[in-house]
Amino acid sequence: MRFTAEQRLEDDDVFEREFTLGEIPGILWTPESASASAPAPLILLGHPGGLHKMYPRLVARARHCAAQGFAAATIELPGSGERPRFAAVEQARADLRQALRAGEPVNDEIVDRLILPLVENAVPEWRGVLDVLLSLPEIGGPVGYAGGVISIGIRLAVVEPRIAAAVLFAGSFVPRAMFDEARQVTIALLVLLQWDDEGNDRQSALDLFDAFGSKEKTLHANMGGHTGVPQFEGDDGDRFFARHLK
Amino acid sequence: MRFTAEQRLEDDDVFEREFTLGEIPGILWTPESASASAPAPLILLGHPGGLHKMYPRLVARARHCAAQGFAAATIELPGSGERPRFAAVEQARADLRQALRAGEPVNDEIVDRLILPLVENAVPEWRGVLDVLLSLPEIGGPVGYAGGVISIGIRLAVVEPRIAAAVLFAGSFVPRAMFDEARQVTIALLVLLQWDDEGNDRQSALDLFDAFGSKEKTLHANMGGHTGVPQFEGDDGDRFFARHLK
Repeated sequence: MRFTAEQRLEDDDVFEREFTLGEIPGILWTPESASASAPAPLILLGHPGGLHKMYPRLVARARHCAAQGFAAATIELPGSGERPRFAAVEQARADLRQALRAGEPVNDEIVDRLILPLVENAVPEWRGVLDVLLSLPEIGGPVGYAGGVISIGIRLAVVEPRIAAAVLFAGSFVPRAMFDEARQVTIALLVLLQWDDEGNDRQSALDLFDAFGSKEKTLHANMGGHTGVPQFEGDDGDRFFARHLK
Repeated sequence: MRFTAEQRLEDDDVFEREFTLGEIPGILWTPESASASAPAPLILLGHPGGLHKMYPRLVARARHCAAQGFAAATIELPGSGERPRFAAVEQARADLRQALRAGEPVNDEIVDRLILPLVENAVPEWRGVLDVLLSLPEIGGPVGYAGGVISIGIRLAVVEPRIAAAVLFAGSFVPRAMFDEARQVTIALLVLLQWDDEGNDRQSALDLFDAFGSKEKTLHANMGGHTGVPQFEGDDGDRFFARHLK
């Protein structure tokens, strides 16, 4: 892992470092309080791709995390931002847009082509980044995952034993195969649902919540569209992680 | 209103007073901080009936309220506890139990006979008690409602303009007519749902949440049965009221 830039965020006791690991760009935020003798638990911040565009929301989440004594990290999704595109995924995205424009139902085949390659590629990258981040003296376990793409969160929750709790945003299309994986998830979950999300089927999200195998899972549904998650859900997420990662 | 007993709760800065208003017994809890110059907002604590049996849970909620600077009050439901029974409601309750024992679906007619008389009788009583409580110098507006019976909460939210926010527990049968009333509710709502509530139909609760006319409404669904609402939902309720009543 190579740190390529660093800055102390103004008015906050947060240290921000940009990094690359191989071809993967990412950002690590650590609270001042984190040290080798008091390592900070880590929260991985998922997002739909496009690190530069997502930066304002991600840094706001990272500040929340730091205020709770957590480190936070994010990476660019494969095929997004400055990273080389996947031709097949781009084609699926174009097909999805065309179906939505035509008012057609989005069929499972398009969703599979769009999401499954992302999951296949992003999850091993997250795990590799996690290996390195946990080797830093100021970062300790346990680890949380917060955000979208929900299918990536599901796969990570199943395969990565270092992840102890997750806040998942039910705001993207979910391949049918991921419902079976959801049944294998046993970590504590807080699932966020926007009740009138224009890009997400409500019943499918409720079915997914039902499918999760976790004994402790909570659904928070709020009014409004995809980008309307209320600010107080950030606080609720902090308290959820405080209960499970401390 | 006649105060019939009073005590200061141990280890808490909470003053508890039992009262009667006409034939209605109730309890009022006020924080030490409440005074004529700094009146406390009031939270009405709903419950399924049986004040004595419900006391441990109610006093725990009242302590939460007081810690946030809120007064809290509850009354016995008509037909419950020491109050005279309604023969028609008792018959409906017996019919309901028999239907559940026989594994039969609970039909709308039984639910109407069980719940509608409660709503008709309890809501004017709550409003009368509210008149008196708000005339006390140490109690001020705005007012919140928390708990069950959800149909009582719905009717109160529609007819009582002094109620500004409600935490409603979707854990009881809801007459079809209340769905129309739910559409008229416009106050901020936090709706609690137990995902595997043995006495409550999940889809009906989701439909009810959808029906509420409020712009700000949040659903919190948790695992487990009717009595398994997790303790952290108490904290979430406190924060909800802090956002809307302060």
